[in-house]
Amino acid sequence: MTTAGTDAYRELETIFAQYYHLKRIDSILQWDTSVVMPAGSTNARAQQLAALQRCLQAVLADERVPALLDDATAALHRLSPWEQANVREMRTLYNRTVALPETLRSALSEASVRCEAAWREARKGQDFKTFAPHFSSVLALVREKADYLAGTSGCEPYEALLREYDSERTLAQCQTLFDTLQDALPPLLRRAQKRSQKTVSAPPAPALSLARQKKLCRIVLQDLGFDFETGRLDQSLHPFTEGGFEDIRITTAYDRRDACKGLLGAIHEFGHAAYDAGLPAKWHSQPVGRDRGMSLHEGMALLYEMAMARTPHFIDYLEKLFSSQGWPFDRMQYSHHLLHVEPGCIRIDADELSYPAHILLRYRMERALLDGSLAVADITDCWNGHMQDLLGLQPKTLAQGCLQDIHWPMGFFGYFPSYAFGAVYAANLYVNLEEEGVVGAARPTAPDFAALNAWLRRHVADHGAYYSEEALQERLGLNNVPRYLRYLETRYC
Amino acid sequence: MTTAGTDAYRELETIFAQYYHLKRIDSILQWDTSVVMPAGSTNARAQQLAALQRCLQAVLADERVPALLDDATAALHRLSPWEQANVREMRTLYNRTVALPETLRSALSEASVRCEAAWREARKGQDFKTFAPHFSSVLALVREKADYLAGTSGCEPYEALLREYDSERTLAQCQTLFDTLQDALPPLLRRAQKRSQKTVSAPPAPALSLARQKKLCRIVLQDLGFDFETGRLDQSLHPFTEGGFEDIRITTAYDRRDACKGLLGAIHEFGHAAYDAGLPAKWHSQPVGRDRGMSLHEGMALLYEMAMARTPHFIDYLEKLFSSQGWPFDRMQYSHHLLHVEPGCIRIDADELSYPAHILLRYRMERALLDGSLAVADITDCWNGHMQDLLGLQPKTLAQGCLQDIHWPMGFFGYFPSYAFGAVYAANLYVNLEEEGVVGAARPTAPDFAALNAWLRRHVADHGAYYSEEALQERLGLNNVPRYLRYLETRYC
Repeated sequence: MTTAGTDAYRELETIFAQYYHLKRIDSILQWDTSVVMPAGSTNARAQQLAALQRCLQAVLADERVPALLDDATAALHRLSPWEQANVREMRTLYNRTVALPETLRSALSEASVRCEAAWREARKGQDFKTFAPHFSSVLALVREKADYLAGTSGCEPYEALLREYDSERTLAQCQTLFDTLQDALPPLLRRAQKRSQKTVSAPPAPALSLARQKKLCRIVLQDLGFDFETGRLDQSLHPFTEGGFEDIRITTAYDRRDACKGLLGAIHEFGHAAYDAGLPAKWHSQPVGRDRGMSLHEGMALLYEMAMARTPHFIDYLEKLFSSQGWPFDRMQYSHHLLHVEPGCIRIDADELSYPAHILLRYRMERALLDGSLAVADITDCWNGHMQDLLGLQPKTLAQGCLQDIHWPMGFFGYFPSYAFGAVYAANLYVNLEEEGVVGAARPTAPDFAALNAWLRRHVADHGAYYSEEALQERLGLNNVPRYLRYLETRYC
Repeated sequence: MTTAGTDAYRELETIFAQYYHLKRIDSILQWDTSVVMPAGSTNARAQQLAALQRCLQAVLADERVPALLDDATAALHRLSPWEQANVREMRTLYNRTVALPETLRSALSEASVRCEAAWREARKGQDFKTFAPHFSSVLALVREKADYLAGTSGCEPYEALLREYDSERTLAQCQTLFDTLQDALPPLLRRAQKRSQKTVSAPPAPALSLARQKKLCRIVLQDLGFDFETGRLDQSLHPFTEGGFEDIRITTAYDRRDACKGLLGAIHEFGHAAYDAGLPAKWHSQPVGRDRGMSLHEGMALLYEMAMARTPHFIDYLEKLFSSQGWPFDRMQYSHHLLHVEPGCIRIDADELSYPAHILLRYRMERALLDGSLAVADITDCWNGHMQDLLGLQPKTLAQGCLQDIHWPMGFFGYFPSYAFGAVYAANLYVNLEEEGVVGAARPTAPDFAALNAWLRRHVADHGAYYSEEALQERLGLNNVPRYLRYLETRYC
């Protein structure tokens, strides 16, 4: 039995490696769709992605898998600790994947490719009506999926979706976090806004030509430690990272009037890329070698974008960089722009203090969409109503309002809360880094990116999915909300 | 039984559509590897392609397939003629695919990705020695594959490889064609060379900046009828076409000193793309809706590149195009350059008369590599010896010699003969087009690309793989070698 058990484990490793390599193909195709695919090829791509989904499903739906998992579990004591953790992660992935009928999964994959294309068009043309039927199809399939997952795991439908991204997340954790933020942030935001208005009134950072913006991002990524030998930087409508270990593809979205947008987008994605690149190479094709969920992934991204890239040290670095390129740099303007607190309509452009309000809005709306209390036709009104309540703003266009994010058209419901957890994680990681003297005022010179990367690698990426999220939270104090709020207060108020 | 038979047929359609969509993913990944993939990502890509090969294999190796094929065959009379032809093509594809053990197929896929990377390096560094072990691995696997296929189909190993590209090809057909060409071409070549030397002694076409060359190719493709809404043009080391129906990706390779090279490469690939784009949309995910083999595919490509793009009408068209762009154009020089007959070392740069000699060399060598009479270490000497015999030339570098083509490093043995058949097909198609007044002196004006495309679509692409290659040869007189030789004589002597 025990030998059979370790044999079963080896066989599982082969099966899950196959799953992983196919997943990476899916990721490369996602990149291709957004960056290089001809505009008229959506239909062909939808069929390809659906075919790939069927394969992914088939790999884990292999009828031998449940018995292999049982045999491997019975032989756990003969496995190394990492192998034991791998069996745990295999089971989680297996349960999540086989719970869904293959027809539902490929229908969702196909519908979301079409819906994404419709979203791109609708943003341009201010046209919610032609988008609505595509989105209704996606939503119906997502609801069906949530019901299925809830049925097999015994949790609530929305909770089941949350667990697609963070396998241990509970609805109660979510609700607690949003309740706290809802109470604690508005007063902080008001104080910070007052201070922001008093101290500086400079216009936003001056324009840099698109060519210079691209060069800027390339240099900064290189300095941060991004390896262009196994990675790319491209332009897309919405910044993202795909590809993974040994082939990491970052995109960012440039704004001709504001060089900071493209730069901060690239730095955010660098955080994702750094996490992926730092995962334990030996385990990268196995579930235990993957990241510890999307909250931590977003935490890594926000740590670089929000916490690191807005420090005086980073502004020193930028000043030197601009000067070496012979580009104009007004330090005052950049500092102001990066640390300025002022609610806006766009989530990815939001400052660190108003950012959680954007997530709260989406959290409320996706729950309502999912339980059917919000109809697709009412999305625009509902969005604008929440925006008024939470940030006192009215979006002028759909692209600034309810069509600003790609997540829902892609079928990613339950993802947004990971940005809120990520914000808490990022702040706590940053405070750890300050306390250990890796960043912050304690260091006499410009930021030491290599030391920063090394610390994060050692404390986060190196562990892959070996620890549970809760164990990692405890080791690093990641989920300390009061510490997060103090960090915001110190920095902005 | 009959109802079950048509049900079986529908089920087969679903299975083969799944196969087709995965094949297209493979094609997009091939494009990605050559055009956009970071240089250091070869390892990851090799694993992805091997995983995809396993899926492709699994789709057809499904144990239900043989019985479904039998049931569908028993119910043929209840199927439409296209469905009947589809069952025939399904069986061919099935036999070819399941004959190979999955481990062999994925080993070959992985080895050839690594070998292709080694080939790229070896070409730069004049270094055959580091390339040799990678190539030996590929060759060993190809030999194993040929033996397997020969064992299951009852033909010779090399013949089995030929049939990967043209399902009805026999070794005897190959040998007959090469015997004829070997005798008939050298005297034609000598006469044409004499004439070429006498009439013009202008230097090759003048340089156009790389930016202008790219623009030139884009305009010509657009005028030819390439749809950039569902297609791309990129640059690569070796021109190729991937992607297929509704997402066709052409590449070409530019030469800073000679604008014709990149242009002719793009036109050649346009021929491939036009064939793919013209295949019957209704059947595109089924075997019967695919092309009728690589000889005809190369025939379409050579028709555009060799036969069409070297006519006075096409040179008229180029002259007008250059003039509209304000670029210099010496008509005499271009005519001379395009119709000049002079053996060179590089196959893809060869004129229409010396081209078959390049194929003959490869045909001889790949047979010898396959039967073991030629060792990998002796490839360079053998290549150079044949080059001296056939064209009186000595390559100066590996990139001009035995490492000029990507086919062998990629594991594509048995492909080269399709270029020779393709040359015969192209000439015969062209003579048909002349006789029907679609091209040639009979037309008073510049070439009518739309009429040319429409004729080819109606007579070639529309039929997909409905007819056997032999039936199509007969309908269009494709394989008329004397007519091919007369065409060459008229044009060059």
